[in-house]
Amino acid sequence: MPDLIHGGDIYSAHVSLSQPILDFSANINPLGLPPAVKAAAVFAIDQCVHYPDPLCRELRSAIAKQEGTTPDQILCGNGAADLIFRLVLALHPKNAVVLSPTFAEYEQALATVDCKIHRHFLLEQDEFALTASFLDELTPQTDLVFLCNPNNPTGQVIEPSLLTEILEKCRQNYIILVMDECFNDFLDHPKEHTLKGLVPSSPQLFILKAFTKIYAMAGLRLGYGISSNRELIQKISDSGQPWSVSIPAQAAGVQALRETQYLKKTAVLISAERAYLTEQFTQMGLRVIGSKANYIFFRAVGHENLKNELLRRGILIRSCQNYAGLDASYYRVAVRSHRENQILAEVLRNLI
Amino acid sequence: MPDLIHGGDIYSAHVSLSQPILDFSANINPLGLPPAVKAAAVFAIDQCVHYPDPLCRELRSAIAKQEGTTPDQILCGNGAADLIFRLVLALHPKNAVVLSPTFAEYEQALATVDCKIHRHFLLEQDEFALTASFLDELTPQTDLVFLCNPNNPTGQVIEPSLLTEILEKCRQNYIILVMDECFNDFLDHPKEHTLKGLVPSSPQLFILKAFTKIYAMAGLRLGYGISSNRELIQKISDSGQPWSVSIPAQAAGVQALRETQYLKKTAVLISAERAYLTEQFTQMGLRVIGSKANYIFFRAVGHENLKNELLRRGILIRSCQNYAGLDASYYRVAVRSHRENQILAEVLRNLI
Repeated sequence: MPDLIHGGDIYSAHVSLSQPILDFSANINPLGLPPAVKAAAVFAIDQCVHYPDPLCRELRSAIAKQEGTTPDQILCGNGAADLIFRLVLALHPKNAVVLSPTFAEYEQALATVDCKIHRHFLLEQDEFALTASFLDELTPQTDLVFLCNPNNPTGQVIEPSLLTEILEKCRQNYIILVMDECFNDFLDHPKEHTLKGLVPSSPQLFILKAFTKIYAMAGLRLGYGISSNRELIQKISDSGQPWSVSIPAQAAGVQALRETQYLKKTAVLISAERAYLTEQFTQMGLRVIGSKANYIFFRAVGHENLKNELLRRGILIRSCQNYAGLDASYYRVAVRSHRENQILAEVLRNLI
Repeated sequence: MPDLIHGGDIYSAHVSLSQPILDFSANINPLGLPPAVKAAAVFAIDQCVHYPDPLCRELRSAIAKQEGTTPDQILCGNGAADLIFRLVLALHPKNAVVLSPTFAEYEQALATVDCKIHRHFLLEQDEFALTASFLDELTPQTDLVFLCNPNNPTGQVIEPSLLTEILEKCRQNYIILVMDECFNDFLDHPKEHTLKGLVPSSPQLFILKAFTKIYAMAGLRLGYGISSNRELIQKISDSGQPWSVSIPAQAAGVQALRETQYLKKTAVLISAERAYLTEQFTQMGLRVIGSKANYIFFRAVGHENLKNELLRRGILIRSCQNYAGLDASYYRVAVRSHRENQILAEVLRNLI
């Protein structure tokens, strides 16, 4: 059974889905599933007597249009996590570099193929931002690098100039660079922090994106990869079953890509509420770090039991204790609606 | 991209889901998705803003109750095909034995880990039934065996006495036996052909089952494995992402297990219609082989273009040409409703 080390585990929190709880542990769009996306998924249930299209043809065309690329550069999966495992199983890397702290799934996937993992520790003195020292990790022995931009749980972005240097060094050393951009859409200036424009000229690059967070459809499972490396896409596709993306997920994805107003509303809300929570937390004396995406990463020294204390008050947050390099004083909370954020701030203020 | 070698590929057949076509190529329950299961899936879309329960707790309890076992002996997957790939990636077998012809996914999964595949050819002179000669394939060098009972595409069952001999020889030689029982529920006497009762005493056994076919929910993706080998279950679980089963699939599965009347109706319908199609095909001079499940396997020598001729008339069937050991004269059709089966028989009669 998988370890329950992630956010969003409302099932272990001894609450049923029918009971209201404020879940700040999963970084999901607080606007919820767009109504037309929900309708598309509901309508698609009727078609579930059929197998899904294993090639996700309609969905890949729609994604390619949105991403300004061609369908053959898109690979869909049962959530971004599915693609992470498939990619690792396809490449069987011997040496991989991952950040610490970062999304736990990279190491979990690498562990399944007995890959030697080189952890590059992000430092509090750098505000957990990636620095040029990372370039030294990339050697001819390196097979694979996972980067997450903005990083999870820190919400830090990688400087664009450093990003191009990393990409170049990966090219020189025949390293596959997996750039997880699942939270890119929540940044104030997403375009400045994506490598999408370099996909055509970078066969060493595989960009990961998810519908999960930005369209609030974690339970439907849908993610995709972008790469100009056709051999790589074929290998990843072959490393798992053909029908990994369900019919409701494919239908929801096609509709989601039409939700341009929803994306604009999301950007405005997240930007304002991120600022609100950052201000509130800072006023309370909590140390907010990074936090440029839709979640706040903070340190509360002397409050190592905050998660349990909040849970007793019906609020679920993410303790970052189980990230290598962090301890029980680090936490992550999602940016949610103003009313919910107010409640969180109020309860926190009373506790601290 | 995956090869489109399976039945049910209505997407390549140049028809859209909104156009009616008689799909005899996918072996799915002709009664369709039970209304209450559909309702449960639709209702669950509302909860998809959350991540699915990675441990599928409610669903595993319900399955365990139905299968007369405990939840820790159940592992759920994104369709049975997901579990086939995970199992192979978890075990990394060096030598595996598969039947020929059989479900193509076993070999596809084994190919991803460069496993040496030993094909045991089923012979037309044996009506493609498994014989005791299969026991000679099981040696101390064998790591893994895939069997499918009833087999796909032949619809042949394995003699219960031979089955226990195979299980015993696997035990002696430390071979993991994957017994795919996905079509067991469509047999006239399912209980006589399942190894479920031997799970507690057989750590070498992993039984595969799917909701896909019997509950007509191929597009939702849900399958499971049964084994008393906890180490094996843990390994398979670790060889992929934690959230492989979507919220709608989990909800649909829980409801499906309550559909006892539906299962009874299915058994009556399939039994009668299997007999009807067998009689019709035999009268036309087609050679029906095996066919004890919800599909008819037949040979039509001199009619090697039957698939295309039927497709022109709006009927999709499965050519078995791409199975190793078969040629273009072999076909498989699903057993569907009486009206649909009548149409198929009529169109076929006119063609032959």
